[in-house]
Amino acid sequence: MNLLETINEPAELRKLARAQLTPLAHELRHFLLDSVSKTGGHLSSNLGTVELTIALHYVFNTPHDRIVWDVGHQTYSHKILTGRRDQMHSLRQLNGISGFPRRDESEYDTFGTAHSSTSISAALGMAQAAKIKGEQRHAIAVIGDGSMTAGMAFEALNNAGVQEDINLLVVLNDNDMSISPPVGALNRYLARLMSGQFYAAAKNVGKSVLPGPVLELAKRFEEHAKGMVVPATMFEEFGFNYIGPIDGHDLDSLIPTLENIKKLKGPQFLHVVTKKGQGYKLAEADPVLYHGPGKFNPTEGILPAKAGKTTYTEVFGNWLCDMAAADKRLVGITPAMREGSGMVRFEEQFPDRYFDVGIAEQHSVTFAGGLATEGLKPVVAIYSTFLQRAYDQLIHDVALQNLDVLFALDRAGLVGADGATHAGNYDVSYLRCIPNMVVMAASDENECRQMLSTGYQYNGPAAVRYPRGAGIGAVIEKELTTLPIGKGEIKRQGASVAIMAFGSMVARSVVAGEELNATVANMRFIKPLDVELVKQLAQDHDYLVTVEEGAVMGGAGSAVAEALAELGIQKPLLILGLPDKFIDHGDPAALLASVGLDAKGIAASIRQRFGAVEPRLVVNNI
Amino acid sequence: MNLLETINEPAELRKLARAQLTPLAHELRHFLLDSVSKTGGHLSSNLGTVELTIALHYVFNTPHDRIVWDVGHQTYSHKILTGRRDQMHSLRQLNGISGFPRRDESEYDTFGTAHSSTSISAALGMAQAAKIKGEQRHAIAVIGDGSMTAGMAFEALNNAGVQEDINLLVVLNDNDMSISPPVGALNRYLARLMSGQFYAAAKNVGKSVLPGPVLELAKRFEEHAKGMVVPATMFEEFGFNYIGPIDGHDLDSLIPTLENIKKLKGPQFLHVVTKKGQGYKLAEADPVLYHGPGKFNPTEGILPAKAGKTTYTEVFGNWLCDMAAADKRLVGITPAMREGSGMVRFEEQFPDRYFDVGIAEQHSVTFAGGLATEGLKPVVAIYSTFLQRAYDQLIHDVALQNLDVLFALDRAGLVGADGATHAGNYDVSYLRCIPNMVVMAASDENECRQMLSTGYQYNGPAAVRYPRGAGIGAVIEKELTTLPIGKGEIKRQGASVAIMAFGSMVARSVVAGEELNATVANMRFIKPLDVELVKQLAQDHDYLVTVEEGAVMGGAGSAVAEALAELGIQKPLLILGLPDKFIDHGDPAALLASVGLDAKGIAASIRQRFGAVEPRLVVNNI
Repeated sequence: MNLLETINEPAELRKLARAQLTPLAHELRHFLLDSVSKTGGHLSSNLGTVELTIALHYVFNTPHDRIVWDVGHQTYSHKILTGRRDQMHSLRQLNGISGFPRRDESEYDTFGTAHSSTSISAALGMAQAAKIKGEQRHAIAVIGDGSMTAGMAFEALNNAGVQEDINLLVVLNDNDMSISPPVGALNRYLARLMSGQFYAAAKNVGKSVLPGPVLELAKRFEEHAKGMVVPATMFEEFGFNYIGPIDGHDLDSLIPTLENIKKLKGPQFLHVVTKKGQGYKLAEADPVLYHGPGKFNPTEGILPAKAGKTTYTEVFGNWLCDMAAADKRLVGITPAMREGSGMVRFEEQFPDRYFDVGIAEQHSVTFAGGLATEGLKPVVAIYSTFLQRAYDQLIHDVALQNLDVLFALDRAGLVGADGATHAGNYDVSYLRCIPNMVVMAASDENECRQMLSTGYQYNGPAAVRYPRGAGIGAVIEKELTTLPIGKGEIKRQGASVAIMAFGSMVARSVVAGEELNATVANMRFIKPLDVELVKQLAQDHDYLVTVEEGAVMGGAGSAVAEALAELGIQKPLLILGLPDKFIDHGDPAALLASVGLDAKGIAASIRQRFGAVEPRLVVNNI
Repeated sequence: MNLLETINEPAELRKLARAQLTPLAHELRHFLLDSVSKTGGHLSSNLGTVELTIALHYVFNTPHDRIVWDVGHQTYSHKILTGRRDQMHSLRQLNGISGFPRRDESEYDTFGTAHSSTSISAALGMAQAAKIKGEQRHAIAVIGDGSMTAGMAFEALNNAGVQEDINLLVVLNDNDMSISPPVGALNRYLARLMSGQFYAAAKNVGKSVLPGPVLELAKRFEEHAKGMVVPATMFEEFGFNYIGPIDGHDLDSLIPTLENIKKLKGPQFLHVVTKKGQGYKLAEADPVLYHGPGKFNPTEGILPAKAGKTTYTEVFGNWLCDMAAADKRLVGITPAMREGSGMVRFEEQFPDRYFDVGIAEQHSVTFAGGLATEGLKPVVAIYSTFLQRAYDQLIHDVALQNLDVLFALDRAGLVGADGATHAGNYDVSYLRCIPNMVVMAASDENECRQMLSTGYQYNGPAAVRYPRGAGIGAVIEKELTTLPIGKGEIKRQGASVAIMAFGSMVARSVVAGEELNATVANMRFIKPLDVELVKQLAQDHDYLVTVEEGAVMGGAGSAVAEALAELGIQKPLLILGLPDKFIDHGDPAALLASVGLDAKGIAASIRQRFGAVEPRLVVNNI
């Protein structure tokens, strides 16, 4: 680690001789593997970007020049080279450094990312700002081939390609991967670019330090004037000067090419080919497994997971297969999250009814709408945070037409190590205002299965939200049973205080309820809310409490407040949920405790608000 | 009108001889001009699609074959030919037919549209459904060149291009227009396709009724195997069989070409060139002016508008120019709505700080985020309904990073003739749950200007919502003054009842307040809510009322309910706003009255809820 330890900022990197960069890359890769195997985190993608990161910071004058890392889970090398080597042990942990770029973490993190395909838009903004302010700086977007399939990347290309006098460089980090294996026409196109003579010719470019051949090549494939269509890559058709593909692990290609590009004006597009997991054979062989592992021993690799508690993701995956077997109208859709959404087995068993549409949330929802118009029953498996990308499509293309689409919202609530960017805190607020929607929150694994069946059988748009990870270990019934729409249940009869709990907060509320001898209801439905139950609880108790793992503003507690207003009932109401701030990464249990959403916190908040709650009735516990 | 009157469904159209179609097109164009000049509505786009509509219904077996019209404002010919000729007089009026396709209006309206770029996704869903169900039918998406710039169109192309055995046809209706003149690289690319030899060669294709030349041409430009990149259009690179461009007003090109395409398997892409306003010289000369006119006399054309009340859009446009003159950091961004958002003068005066990014809401917001990181002050002018398209970007790329971006939300609330698809009913609910946001609602034109200045000067994300059309005629002060953040004002001191009104509902509430001797507050801020004012009003009154032009669920009234719960105040609360249903098109004033949001309705709701409200104090009216 002799070289790596000398680099505390990129300026020090830039003092190294070219010949020192290859050994530095070796050290960096070693450090990465060692570090990630101890903390867990993203591995494959970071092993794939070691040389590219070195080359970008070596050639460009960061932080004066701006690098925007798309998605950002490939920025560990960037973090290590920009002064955060000694903090890597705290990666993704409470009060530690983030697994993604963050503007408040470093001046080298020019733009916070985590959702895909934003980098070209952001870098274009920076490039335009430099132009407007008359500053000489480069803005560089580093974007993966998976991220290129999302529409907003094309929106940005379309806008950038006509802006001739900007210093914008888009680096396509083509590793033939999103998190799941790649799909779609663009991927095939990139494969053709890589496999052909074009690649063969281009490969030599990087070997040369002269700008001549690069320009020559670019010109050779440039479109002639006069409207004649001649060979050009898609990126040239969008107005970019296309260079590549070049080998993204070969510093002798990368550095001279970047140095040449630095001298060019206007939108530049560099196609770099890398391999996820590069340098660690196990990750190269199975980049999906090594995409985001927990801790592991690098010499023996990731061991088969011991059978643990069933996760909600697995509950969904099993339900999907069972319901698909029972109903041939079911189709399953994922925007590039086959593994994350638990759809591996579904794809194997029902390949004709499985659709991975790529990182394309918008399309996934409208595509589902189209399928629904023909009497099929689409299930869109999507994280709560990613449904934000398809909000308008959910409103217009599904809810407004009252089409029969089920949304399985994984990762609802806090998600832990991925932090604020992946938290599913807003779905309750943004969904319940939409007419025709049915919105449910699962309190345990079995209820999750029942709710999925309920939403599926309901003839209209429905959403089931469930948290990341495992639940309470409820016994899961094999039957595909449904629940009555808009009906909650009383979990525990108490006195004086009634806790109306939603989803993941039900079990915790029951524990708090034991302590306080409070009545606890599992409300099940955020929409339609069980207004009768609200009314009954309000009549029978002195103090009302709502608890949810979602934003308080506009959330389920807010729905209860609206219902009470409408009912004309005035009772003290305490609304517990996620506060109005972005919550950082960390251990999920610790995070929930930090916002008072563990059983202890719930009880404490109730006591704090309503004092030492006196039971007005003594009722046997159920 | 001899021919047109005989067509009550496309089956009757298909009985006509080919030679009869040209006179039919002539009659249809005449009918359109006559009809739209009497009702108002979209004109240019409909004059441009007369022949294409005839050809599609003539060649394809509708409704068995499915046509999805992107955006859908070009579907008047389609409506006329599918049994709705006699209802065209009721277009866009209360209880009349919609200006867009609607599934509940006709079986020929296969998918409701209105926001752009959804058609390929929806048609792909239909094509896949046919494949899964083993049905022989075609699914056809008709999409404009403007709509092609939105990312979700590319997401759909990327997904569709790899599905080889589907009957999907994408018709690109290339009229060199979105609502505003076209921008971006794709438009330049299409222009090159049209202007070159390629077009010249292709033009002959349609003349032939033999499939041979069409296939020949398609093959000629097909990509060879073995990775060699040879000439291919971008659409072929996406896996489509590209045919065209052909003249979209020439039925002798359109019909044989469509008949040939009908026999082909796999994703087909037909590039059709049309002219907006075709056949009506005035509209051809100024398609933007004739995009969506009100009533006019076809022989004299649209006359210069008489000076009327200033619209909120004009208030924004004037403010933007004034603030840009005062602060050179200001940049203005529109996703293809230069005219609609009132930015024509801003573009003229500040061309270097004006960005029309195309129909690309997602990109517009992240681009703004990028600009803001460099210390510029972006103003994103966007309709409330279109911001739904950029919700995730607003959360991640602006709010999470607390970047200084101002959102000017035009068309907040009901919009009238455009109906449910354009209504801005949800922004309060979907914005107020997002940390760091400041959200304001303008009660009159002058306050709108003040709020824009306030949001602009606030160092973080802020949104100002204002309604469609003109306001109450308030005098607009020239100064660029700001308002204290999070502070409302009392407009009228009354007794017993306190009405907390938001935005467009303030003036109406004051009238209702006069009638009831109620106190009326203009709350101004939805977030941060003026909790002190809520507290004071609650303490001083017996009955509380909130009024807003937005969804009740999760809206501003809901924020007040949350605040009362938090304050521990129990008072009767009536929340008035838009009910939980999609509200159809019609006259805006009539629509507001229908949901009880005119002054009379507000007073009636309060009386109904709280009885004959007795003043407990006599206070002079202010």
